Amino acid sequence: MILSGGFRETGAEGAQREQEIKEIARRYGIRMVGPNCVGLMVTHQNLNITFLKDMPAPGEIGFLSQSGGLCAAVINWAPQAGIGFSRIISLGNQSDINETDMLAAFEDSTNTRVITVYLEGIDDGPTFIETATQVSRTRPIVALKVGRSQAASRAVASHTGALSGTDEAYSAAFKRAGVLRASSMEELFDWARALAWQPLPQGNRVGVLTNAGGLGIVAVDALEAAGLKLAPLTEATKAFLRPRVLPAASVENPVDILGGSGSATYALALDALLADPTVDAVCVVQAPQDWFSSTSLAEVVGEIASRSRKPVLACVMGLESPSTSAAANILNQRRIPNYTFPERLGSALAAMWHRQTWLREQKDAAEVHEDPPARDADAASAVLQRARDAGRTALLAEEGYELMAAYGIPTPAGGLAPTADDAARMAEAIGYPVALKIVSPAIVHKTDVGGVALDLADAGAVRAAADAMRDRANQRFGNAPIHGFLVQKMLTGGQELIVGVTRDAQFGPLVMAGSGGVAVELTRDVAFALAPLRRAQAAALLDETTAGPLLDGYRGAPASDRAAVEDIIVRLAQLALDQPCIAEIEINPVIAHRAGAGASAVDVRVILSADDRAGAA
Amino acid sequence: MILSGGFRETGAEGAQREQEIKEIARRYGIRMVGPNCVGLMVTHQNLNITFLKDMPAPGEIGFLSQSGGLCAAVINWAPQAGIGFSRIISLGNQSDINETDMLAAFEDSTNTRVITVYLEGIDDGPTFIETATQVSRTRPIVALKVGRSQAASRAVASHTGALSGTDEAYSAAFKRAGVLRASSMEELFDWARALAWQPLPQGNRVGVLTNAGGLGIVAVDALEAAGLKLAPLTEATKAFLRPRVLPAASVENPVDILGGSGSATYALALDALLADPTVDAVCVVQAPQDWFSSTSLAEVVGEIASRSRKPVLACVMGLESPSTSAAANILNQRRIPNYTFPERLGSALAAMWHRQTWLREQKDAAEVHEDPPARDADAASAVLQRARDAGRTALLAEEGYELMAAYGIPTPAGGLAPTADDAARMAEAIGYPVALKIVSPAIVHKTDVGGVALDLADAGAVRAAADAMRDRANQRFGNAPIHGFLVQKMLTGGQELIVGVTRDAQFGPLVMAGSGGVAVELTRDVAFALAPLRRAQAAALLDETTAGPLLDGYRGAPASDRAAVEDIIVRLAQLALDQPCIAEIEINPVIAHRAGAGASAVDVRVILSADDRAGAA
Repeated sequence: MILSGGFRETGAEGAQREQEIKEIARRYGIRMVGPNCVGLMVTHQNLNITFLKDMPAPGEIGFLSQSGGLCAAVINWAPQAGIGFSRIISLGNQSDINETDMLAAFEDSTNTRVITVYLEGIDDGPTFIETATQVSRTRPIVALKVGRSQAASRAVASHTGALSGTDEAYSAAFKRAGVLRASSMEELFDWARALAWQPLPQGNRVGVLTNAGGLGIVAVDALEAAGLKLAPLTEATKAFLRPRVLPAASVENPVDILGGSGSATYALALDALLADPTVDAVCVVQAPQDWFSSTSLAEVVGEIASRSRKPVLACVMGLESPSTSAAANILNQRRIPNYTFPERLGSALAAMWHRQTWLREQKDAAEVHEDPPARDADAASAVLQRARDAGRTALLAEEGYELMAAYGIPTPAGGLAPTADDAARMAEAIGYPVALKIVSPAIVHKTDVGGVALDLADAGAVRAAADAMRDRANQRFGNAPIHGFLVQKMLTGGQELIVGVTRDAQFGPLVMAGSGGVAVELTRDVAFALAPLRRAQAAALLDETTAGPLLDGYRGAPASDRAAVEDIIVRLAQLALDQPCIAEIEINPVIAHRAGAGASAVDVRVILSADDRAGAA
Repeated sequence: MILSGGFRETGAEGAQREQEIKEIARRYGIRMVGPNCVGLMVTHQNLNITFLKDMPAPGEIGFLSQSGGLCAAVINWAPQAGIGFSRIISLGNQSDINETDMLAAFEDSTNTRVITVYLEGIDDGPTFIETATQVSRTRPIVALKVGRSQAASRAVASHTGALSGTDEAYSAAFKRAGVLRASSMEELFDWARALAWQPLPQGNRVGVLTNAGGLGIVAVDALEAAGLKLAPLTEATKAFLRPRVLPAASVENPVDILGGSGSATYALALDALLADPTVDAVCVVQAPQDWFSSTSLAEVVGEIASRSRKPVLACVMGLESPSTSAAANILNQRRIPNYTFPERLGSALAAMWHRQTWLREQKDAAEVHEDPPARDADAASAVLQRARDAGRTALLAEEGYELMAAYGIPTPAGGLAPTADDAARMAEAIGYPVALKIVSPAIVHKTDVGGVALDLADAGAVRAAADAMRDRANQRFGNAPIHGFLVQKMLTGGQELIVGVTRDAQFGPLVMAGSGGVAVELTRDVAFALAPLRRAQAAALLDETTAGPLLDGYRGAPASDRAAVEDIIVRLAQLALDQPCIAEIEINPVIAHRAGAGASAVDVRVILSADDRAGAA
């Protein structure tokens, strides 16, 4: 473990030094933490291998940090927050051991009930996902990933490229691996306390118990904003409570026992709420009263909560830090997370519910075997190789359709016709109206040369359009090599979507789906997930955008073939996984026909990696 | 001031009692606070008219609360946060004196530099806006408005109705009046401290000064997410800093002086950043170090900041509460707001910048006189009266167009033709293609009887469509009274928008504008503002949605006539203001033609108030 600085972080000379120590370590089979790190603390063994004087109290929370300064700050802050740690690890320059190695090492830490991570980047995406998924099965991981605003500007060739930032890939990776992504340091440790100290809720229905209506409303707003619901409460619970609270009190949820009720009433009401089968979790929200002590309240809440397998979170406002307030200290000792303001209850409880949901999805997925989609990967490879051999970085239109065919993704009826007459014959065969597109490796932007004609209604129109296109192309490019004309059945009606995939440098294929339209980069009505995708994951992706409800038949519109769209998404993900030379695919639009009638990939753009190594990541 | 409970909050008998005391007060000309409130504290006069024992320290923050429990909670919490108050007022049942009266009373409070408000509802919307605007000119108001999630379900007749909740009206009212809307109790007091203690920034470019890279990145993420920018820093600043910091330090923004630099370096660097003309505000972010005290840092930051007219906010992590930590106490005494985590700097500084922006808008608006739009209000009233006399609560299509005409809102060429032949003649006059719609008070949903025909290309088609419609209508409704046929020029191309107005019970006409489409209730790509609207306000409304950039010409598309759309919005707002019997108007779509070619209200739905009193609110 090398704590010293003066390595990569200082420039070229330092980087050289770092390379030297790295080689020495490798030569002798030594694993190394750092250099340029704060070090390591293992509190339960009273082990402090850092240059910091004070160690936090032993506790259930592990903390892994890619910033040494942040370790120091957190250690300094922990006592006033009443938070104890199991391990605190600073990773420094990660010359050898990286964040994923250290994450895996937490599997042995019986003292750690939740792992918090401060991340600036990840060394190896797939390994991180694999390790984090494994670790998440036994212990929640909460991550604060920074650098959201500093996404490097990248050259992009499609909507999908413009919309898929590195940050979306991180979010998708975390979601896949069950890592809960906190949006602030406050959330990181708010969630950690709740997850470490309280059991997970079995559902999302919350009981709120308060002595101040206003604080109760603030809590309810936050809970509902976080996607949780107010528990309805049974009549039995209300009947039990009614004679035990003041006449003006509310026995409806949020239960408001009013300022005239003390610890005893809290005990009765909390017990009743926890026993109510409609309640999955309880939030105790208290404005202090002069006539009874917060200490007795803390004791009562701790005692009742400890008997239940449902989570209890508290907001007793106005307690000083646990180091100076007896009541705050009691809540901490009884492992009741207490938050200064009611809003934080909503965020913390939602994180617990998200974890429960992820665990259940894992269980469901393990029970249902789902084969990857059938496909002809060799045929697809041949198409891609042909384009690469020709030195092209974008597929021609008909090659895009061949790729779709190889992966079982339906496209509109049609095909490539070498001449205008062939095009007219093909149009007769597939039926009108048709679209016609000129195909030539010399023509990148077809519309520039009037190379696209829509809604052609008869053979004459097809022939005339093809002749005119050829003339314009020859005029512009001087007898360009024209492969022919793509004839396609025009699809009318149906629900339009955009489906695409990019290749993230860290995490590989990142699938995007959502509602399409010219303004998709403004509306950002799209969602992201990493490949491969199971059917249920493709369905969930659609439901994260307006595409889901629109496909289901919005405002009385007939339902579209959502299953067919999900199938396209699953197949596209598989295609990108199988064929690492693909940099981007965008299908825009996918048209979903009425339920049972399928969906079609109407326009397909495929961009190849300029650099094959990027594809191999 | 009546602190006792037992009134309206307890039921019918209590309400009766409350009515009695209200009448007594009125009879003798006595103004009354309460009943059922905690009371009033004026700290600088050591005046405590509540049933609470402890008063917070005197300070610059006023607190006005519609929840007594929240007052008690805040008073209890204030010492640990190091926050002092000027006045704390609990409003109770507001039988006489309400939140707006008390807000106005703050104008006399020389000790109050910022007013914080906990709101559950407002008594009288227009008076609140007028008073709050007046008060905001001299003192910032920060409000926490709760009950977002509890919007009563309402019967709605349009997209506009479904999208315009009470909460949107509150947000629009706050924005109009310069009231800063906090989303949590933490923000309420985070913002209040920043606004009360530091000068407003003159721009949105922020310098970040830190000794820990990780914390600096967290701060930058939060600042950028809140709409602020990193100051570029001048070369002179960087040249000054370079020899004064460690070799591995960063003199680029965020300036990272590293853990090996102490209070003296903070002093030099903070002074340099505040002197830099590219810097509008500075955030000092510090991870504690063993080798120098946070106390000296607090003194240094306080001293340098006090010499500058630019705001300085701090995040010195890990300080205990000001009541137990010397450093936290010094920062509070020097009026440097200190936040536990860096993310809160972004939120607080953005609130300061929003206030500065509002003050500037007020100044600009005062300098430019803008007449309300010319209109024929009498003609519009006559149209509305005619419908009301006929007992209708929705205008007929042609009446909607008459209303638009009276307010100078352009509609597609066309008009009402009594017979099929008249319709054909009218179509010849205006040019093809045309749309044809049957007009009958008996037919509410025209599409049910095939009462709409689009894209009719010649006189024969118009005549045939009209005859067919009449036949179907007669068949369905048995010789329905048919007023005739609305003939309209079909508009092709152009940018489609939705513009509407509803009448909020508290705040009157609430204007909505944004991108249209069938899924507008899912995408919610719309923004809200209260009537009347100045031209600049209409423009700002469009820019809150994707409609703004789309109108400006998105991705190389030609620009549309944005000015014409803004004009329609201003006129629609005026119409709703002038005509209180209108409950809802929805123009969907408004089509904006190419720049200079105007915009048209294509489809206009007007719903009248069933109850005239609602209209008068």
